[in-house]
Amino acid sequence: MSGAKSIGGQSVCFRSDVYVLGRAAVVGSKEGEGPLRSFFDVIDDTDLFGGENWNDAESRMMKLAASLAIKKAGLTPKQIRMLFAGDLLGQLLASSFGAGELPIPFLGVYGACSTMGESLLLASMAVDGGFADCAEAVTSSHFASAEKEFRFPLAYGNQRPLAATWTVTGSGALVVGNKTALERCYAQREETDQNGAEIVIAGGTVGRVTDFGVKDKANMGACMAPAAAAVVENHLKDFHRTPADYDKIITGDLGEVGAGIFADLLGQKGYRVEPVQEDCGLLIFDNELQDTHSGGSGCGCSAVTLAGYLLNKLYEGEWNRILFVPTGALLSPVSANEGSSIPGIAHAIVLERKKEER
Amino acid sequence: MSGAKSIGGQSVCFRSDVYVLGRAAVVGSKEGEGPLRSFFDVIDDTDLFGGENWNDAESRMMKLAASLAIKKAGLTPKQIRMLFAGDLLGQLLASSFGAGELPIPFLGVYGACSTMGESLLLASMAVDGGFADCAEAVTSSHFASAEKEFRFPLAYGNQRPLAATWTVTGSGALVVGNKTALERCYAQREETDQNGAEIVIAGGTVGRVTDFGVKDKANMGACMAPAAAAVVENHLKDFHRTPADYDKIITGDLGEVGAGIFADLLGQKGYRVEPVQEDCGLLIFDNELQDTHSGGSGCGCSAVTLAGYLLNKLYEGEWNRILFVPTGALLSPVSANEGSSIPGIAHAIVLERKKEER
Repeated sequence: MSGAKSIGGQSVCFRSDVYVLGRAAVVGSKEGEGPLRSFFDVIDDTDLFGGENWNDAESRMMKLAASLAIKKAGLTPKQIRMLFAGDLLGQLLASSFGAGELPIPFLGVYGACSTMGESLLLASMAVDGGFADCAEAVTSSHFASAEKEFRFPLAYGNQRPLAATWTVTGSGALVVGNKTALERCYAQREETDQNGAEIVIAGGTVGRVTDFGVKDKANMGACMAPAAAAVVENHLKDFHRTPADYDKIITGDLGEVGAGIFADLLGQKGYRVEPVQEDCGLLIFDNELQDTHSGGSGCGCSAVTLAGYLLNKLYEGEWNRILFVPTGALLSPVSANEGSSIPGIAHAIVLERKKEER
Repeated sequence: MSGAKSIGGQSVCFRSDVYVLGRAAVVGSKEGEGPLRSFFDVIDDTDLFGGENWNDAESRMMKLAASLAIKKAGLTPKQIRMLFAGDLLGQLLASSFGAGELPIPFLGVYGACSTMGESLLLASMAVDGGFADCAEAVTSSHFASAEKEFRFPLAYGNQRPLAATWTVTGSGALVVGNKTALERCYAQREETDQNGAEIVIAGGTVGRVTDFGVKDKANMGACMAPAAAAVVENHLKDFHRTPADYDKIITGDLGEVGAGIFADLLGQKGYRVEPVQEDCGLLIFDNELQDTHSGGSGCGCSAVTLAGYLLNKLYEGEWNRILFVPTGALLSPVSANEGSSIPGIAHAIVLERKKEER
């Protein structure tokens, strides 16, 4: 161990318990028709959230998720010390305008679709480091604003190759806090399905930018899989664990194509991940029924799957420890048009179920 | 005090000494002709840094600054545990590709021109919180890539109003670390002008998004001044200080117009900031000789002024404690074209000179 809580390599391990105090998952129409529908707090069938255009819609969705998670924790926005938030749009358009309506100190982060990993890790570090009793991590993506930014405006009606993923319209928010904050929440918060358990963020591994030279922006799974495999390999080494130490290892949005590459790459390093492998992009849609090709993607994909489905499984006791690995393709419309390759990044976060004595 | 080191309000105060171990300021031609020329490590008269286009140039400049600060600290890239970096471009194009060439775990951040405040605060929190013995903060901006992204491609030759600022071509990098890391650096590092002093990051205040409804993207000083005044007011309250407790309070890039508004707003709250007020945007260019209108701006502006000029003044002992307040206008080309106002944000960081017993 090189530092108090830096456990060598690329990882950090928290010394104190960083609790999930509140969570919210807000989604659009297509996500509301998918297999995870019962795990979402709000489904807006108009996809507009009362906004005037798609960017405005995304800002409103982000603000709704951020506010709802705070409310469900039994807290008020002024009790949140730091808000770590990001989205896919240039200059974090959705988060900047969404955060502008909240009275919370704001730190914008960008890691493409891996952003929920980065924001959750930084919020947890802020709590464990003693800088905040409560902090919040929020990310969002919107199908229509992302298509406009990265591919083509929807009105063009262009066709999509099978390797392409479908950007999730959704925003996921988690409020994390220390023991003192948890005790303050007990009296007020709404969460009722906890079965007497708390979920803690136990640590994580920060990823490096990894570039395998893939240039196909319709195949982002292949761009991200090497970054995901690298961070999981480093994580397992740093923590002296194997995939079997986790009930599930859940990547962000590798999709059908990327998930296979991810498992192959880890297999080459001697880690058999298939028995515990899941992917948020494959969980959120029924690809056959919903015509979503390689699966869901976007900052919102892993965020709403975590805030909804994954945390439910932990609270219910079906799983006790998971590794959450949001994955991002560091693609900009400019770099792609200039012929650059698309580098990937991924971060890994350990979530554990804990029976609390009250 | 609500937490160990969160001192209430929006501020954090570090319990341990977080040292500046290395620093680098890399700039383009116009900055190299300005009044701070002697404080920069590298001046590239071509503004291209060997790149093939302006985005590529900015990535290379960022990588050069990041690498040089590590080298000057007497360290190797693998000894840096986390890299916090950001720029102005959509999807952090410059930082993502620059960081892809460095073997350092990467956390992308975005706060428009305030990004050096955010990255330096997070890097320092990572060190003080025990998550990293060494971390690095780097930001960049490039005149040509920013004009293309936010205003007009240079080839259009459009005219600039007097309230407009000039985006600095530059990248500033700071390596920060704990006492153990400092001791490891003593033997190897190049810094020779320290006069036996060390500079520590003592704490800071995280800003909120502040929107006064200004819509003029050629007058960003006016968009940012309210955010800067708010964070300085909160900082002084949280730390129980007055402006006179600082040798200088240095905003990022408010420029002529914004600096006046900033002082007026603080004056209305009973704080007289003029005697200690400086602005990186006004320090970096000779606005009359260099025709830069309201001053310099961009993530690189405050970063190179800090890494070059401001730290020199501290090492030389001319100043003992400064408040560094990078300011950002959360403007996206899309939001501006949609008629939205331009919200501002600013973060405040305390840097102190410390005589070290060796």
